[in-house]
Amino acid sequence: MAAPVIAVVGGGQLARMMAPAAGELGVHLRVLVEGPDTAAAQVVTDAPVGAASDEAAIRSLLAPDGGPTADVLTFEHEHVPNDLLADLRAHGTPVRPGPDALVHAQDKIVMRRRLTALGSPCPRWAELPLEPDAARAALADFLAAVGGEAVVKTSRGGYDGKGVRVVRTADGGADQVAGWIDAAAAGGPALLVEEKVPFTRELAVLVARRPSGGVDGAGEVRTWPVVESIQRDGVCAEVIAPAPELSAADAERARDVAVRIAEGLGVTGVLAVEMFEVEAPRSVGTEPSGDATSSRIVVNELAMRPHNSGHWTIDGATTSQFEQHLRAVLDLPLGDTSPTARWTVMANVLGSTLDELTDALPAVLGAHPDARVNLYGKGVRPGRKLGHVNVSGDDLPEVRRRAAAAAAILRGEDL
Amino acid sequence: MAAPVIAVVGGGQLARMMAPAAGELGVHLRVLVEGPDTAAAQVVTDAPVGAASDEAAIRSLLAPDGGPTADVLTFEHEHVPNDLLADLRAHGTPVRPGPDALVHAQDKIVMRRRLTALGSPCPRWAELPLEPDAARAALADFLAAVGGEAVVKTSRGGYDGKGVRVVRTADGGADQVAGWIDAAAAGGPALLVEEKVPFTRELAVLVARRPSGGVDGAGEVRTWPVVESIQRDGVCAEVIAPAPELSAADAERARDVAVRIAEGLGVTGVLAVEMFEVEAPRSVGTEPSGDATSSRIVVNELAMRPHNSGHWTIDGATTSQFEQHLRAVLDLPLGDTSPTARWTVMANVLGSTLDELTDALPAVLGAHPDARVNLYGKGVRPGRKLGHVNVSGDDLPEVRRRAAAAAAILRGEDL
Repeated sequence: MAAPVIAVVGGGQLARMMAPAAGELGVHLRVLVEGPDTAAAQVVTDAPVGAASDEAAIRSLLAPDGGPTADVLTFEHEHVPNDLLADLRAHGTPVRPGPDALVHAQDKIVMRRRLTALGSPCPRWAELPLEPDAARAALADFLAAVGGEAVVKTSRGGYDGKGVRVVRTADGGADQVAGWIDAAAAGGPALLVEEKVPFTRELAVLVARRPSGGVDGAGEVRTWPVVESIQRDGVCAEVIAPAPELSAADAERARDVAVRIAEGLGVTGVLAVEMFEVEAPRSVGTEPSGDATSSRIVVNELAMRPHNSGHWTIDGATTSQFEQHLRAVLDLPLGDTSPTARWTVMANVLGSTLDELTDALPAVLGAHPDARVNLYGKGVRPGRKLGHVNVSGDDLPEVRRRAAAAAAILRGEDL
Repeated sequence: MAAPVIAVVGGGQLARMMAPAAGELGVHLRVLVEGPDTAAAQVVTDAPVGAASDEAAIRSLLAPDGGPTADVLTFEHEHVPNDLLADLRAHGTPVRPGPDALVHAQDKIVMRRRLTALGSPCPRWAELPLEPDAARAALADFLAAVGGEAVVKTSRGGYDGKGVRVVRTADGGADQVAGWIDAAAAGGPALLVEEKVPFTRELAVLVARRPSGGVDGAGEVRTWPVVESIQRDGVCAEVIAPAPELSAADAERARDVAVRIAEGLGVTGVLAVEMFEVEAPRSVGTEPSGDATSSRIVVNELAMRPHNSGHWTIDGATTSQFEQHLRAVLDLPLGDTSPTARWTVMANVLGSTLDELTDALPAVLGAHPDARVNLYGKGVRPGRKLGHVNVSGDDLPEVRRRAAAAAAILRGEDL
């Protein structure tokens, strides 16, 4: 057989970080990129330009003129027309994760319905009707039931804090999302409302699953250690692996929740399960949420691809999330997920005052000889994810301090 | 400033393994490859085809039409015309390592002369005269002095055991290298002869040096732990990091020898110093060998680039030799070289009975979930270096066993 060919939709940093893993495994990577200079296009030799919504571009990605046919289609983001994926799969192309699974990362209402049915721990939540008056009434009822404060979300299209808004009865309730309510009525994304979980911190579990292997051949599954994720302005700013002061029982519970979701949704590839840790077991509510409220954790969001909460694995685990994703979608045996250091901390570089992040290399490498700097080759824009730094070590406060300091240098501070 | 551009001569697996490091640092890699399908050409987007001996190709590599000018020229092999490099450097192009240093990795006579002058521990050695009768007489004298057995080497063009021959008085002495003696007289590579060192094992020290930093700004230098290198048929088959049962004093001595060579030769980039470990300090001989024979180590060969003995650093050290080479030639601060595991063992995949090594991925990844498999994308030929496997752990015999077993699967055995 010729070397496997993996087709990836999306040419950002996630596809970029798949490239080293593909090279090591001897696998051919073909990435559909948004333009010739995107993060992935700079490091992938086979990178046709096209839109994720363009059927012809996807079909050519799978079977280009004069190039080898792809063995599998996968993604670095969820914004791909699901009906096209279903059609491709029906005609024999392995699509991994499949459209039936991917929809749960594309539509938060579909996700909440399914997680509730699976008994996964969810916040109290409700769908808002499409009709505006009914939506306003339902939102008012929900706010009253949860104590006057909740989170309204668009079912589709949100990311990095976009499509999410905290709403309070005291501030006018539905008036705060009037535009979204009208948009939903006009055929835009439907809305859901969730209780604002009184969380103590955010956790994430990264899990990988492949079609074969595992118990009774139901699909091999591996998880990495539970991590703590620290957001700033709705964007992941720091990840601590493993999550500090998390009991073995709670870690086991969190990993178990993630595995059940991966299996329940039939995920192939990497799945990131973002979770809230709550102070203590809460009383069981009356809203539809399964056995959720008896747990110390609550599922927040899903991403069905390598995820920011897993960038630490590049330098801090035996197998990175990027290699694991490629192995999973090719149905190759999964790799060991053990951490290689006591602590690994990832600090994101979000925006920079520099014209080019590489201008800071002399300073950051000089000040932090053991920092693992990863730059995405992207143009600088305020708040944009431009790179990250991993630092490993035994002393967590020191590791955190150094990861943050290295990222600050790349943001143009402390130069 | 724009992102740095590094031009590399040679498109084999060493340039291939520079690509992930370049991507992470946000550095643009441009590689002169021997053909469109070489190991590096598969994973480097900017990979013009040309010969290392072609002056026009090298000049275009540095300043292509329509592309950014390279900031530095470096190499994945030593087979580059040195006069061209000297000319480029004279006209302002940083060439790293520079031609004055590189010549010591190109010409073994130049190397031995210089190491002897530096006081580095060398085997007893002698140049053979170009005139055939004089060469035969000199070789006979040398054989008599060292006890009837020695190693004749061509000064240039040898690698992986080629250009090296053991010669014995009992087998006719110079008759065994009659062809080389005639070739040297006809303008071919000159010859040298070295005593056949009664070594107990082979060690290697990898050292990196950059122009700036370090003590008094004389150039920052970092070494990785001393490794043991195990050859089969003159080719590196296995590397154990760190070298087992090497005393701290001997390790310090070996690293010190390598650092002195890097500094004495003015190396920029990665330098591999291959060494013999001998049983015990030997009596001082009469041949020109500095203070060499009072040491437990003797320098065998030099390579002025990332080297097979350093592939373990990709998975077993904080900074890999490939990233370090790029940092060094850009004069960026060097990275931490600490090992990330108690033991890391690299096993080379030398030849295979498979058509494609990727055919063995299901078996090798299934049997060895923590093995770090690295395939070079090269066509299978007997004995060819097709890839390697790194395994890390606490139990050395077990780590060695698993690395060897994983490599055997990739060679098509035990499938």
